[in-house]
Amino acid sequence: MKIIINAKPLSKKLFAPYGDVIETNETNSFIINRGTTKRFHDLAEIDFAQNDGKPIINLFRSQPRKLPIVITMMERHLLGSQLFFPIGGLPYLVVVAEAKNLITPEDLNVFTATGIQGVNYHRGVWHHPLLVLQPNTDFLVIDRGSAQNDLEEVSFLSNKNHWVINF
Amino acid sequence: MKIIINAKPLSKKLFAPYGDVIETNETNSFIINRGTTKRFHDLAEIDFAQNDGKPIINLFRSQPRKLPIVITMMERHLLGSQLFFPIGGLPYLVVVAEAKNLITPEDLNVFTATGIQGVNYHRGVWHHPLLVLQPNTDFLVIDRGSAQNDLEEVSFLSNKNHWVINF
Repeated sequence: MKIIINAKPLSKKLFAPYGDVIETNETNSFIINRGTTKRFHDLAEIDFAQNDGKPIINLFRSQPRKLPIVITMMERHLLGSQLFFPIGGLPYLVVVAEAKNLITPEDLNVFTATGIQGVNYHRGVWHHPLLVLQPNTDFLVIDRGSAQNDLEEVSFLSNKNHWVINF
Repeated sequence: MKIIINAKPLSKKLFAPYGDVIETNETNSFIINRGTTKRFHDLAEIDFAQNDGKPIINLFRSQPRKLPIVITMMERHLLGSQLFFPIGGLPYLVVVAEAKNLITPEDLNVFTATGIQGVNYHRGVWHHPLLVLQPNTDFLVIDRGSAQNDLEEVSFLSNKNHWVINF
């Protein structure tokens, strides 16, 4: 059976169980550089302290998948947070589930992010790999650097239903 | 007397004495997410370890200054690196001097950055506050969070010359 998951617009409030939305807003901002710059301050909980991790900076260039988008797996990182910010103004989809040990497709939540919203998945939060809507959608990515492998995956392929995103 | 400083196009090679240029290139990249994403890996030396600093994530929205741009001061942070990545594709100027104790305007180097190039000033490197060319030029900024003040400034106002950027 095909089950539709409807995407909602990304907002700080709805995304709070999963992590941070990085966007400009009037809260927690102040003027610096003698009036020329507005600083929106400290917008994400960066969490790499486990096992002496350190932040690394990367660029990701992502391509769209075939439609319809069927969710067959999710992943998470137990040792660190992971932040994605689009750098070309293009929108994308965000698929998440809360940081518990066992998840099923019923736990999924899907958001549409604008091209000027970033997300920071908190440590242990399940998320789908990048789902972009246009070719060569680029992101600045801040994640945890370590020789240690920090990827946990869950597959939904044995689920009798197909979980399809509507956006 | 008016002294012109000519800006050069930003490149990894020319910027090496000051920090990192964050941009896509064919070196140190690999394919992830089952073929859908190219990861340009570990592009900047993030350095917040002094005095138990931690990374904080911010957005800066900057406005152009009046032309001509006269450089009357520089600043630096002795406790941490500072990274700027433009998120709307707009170009900007980068003014730097090497991380020594005393600098004069003769030490300045000026670069034009495209809207898809970020810079990461290494700890102690002198830099001018943001110099953007169009209204509402936005950046993602990664710097060191701390209650401790970490700003050192030098003024060139007593210098008998005016140091003007040509770009």
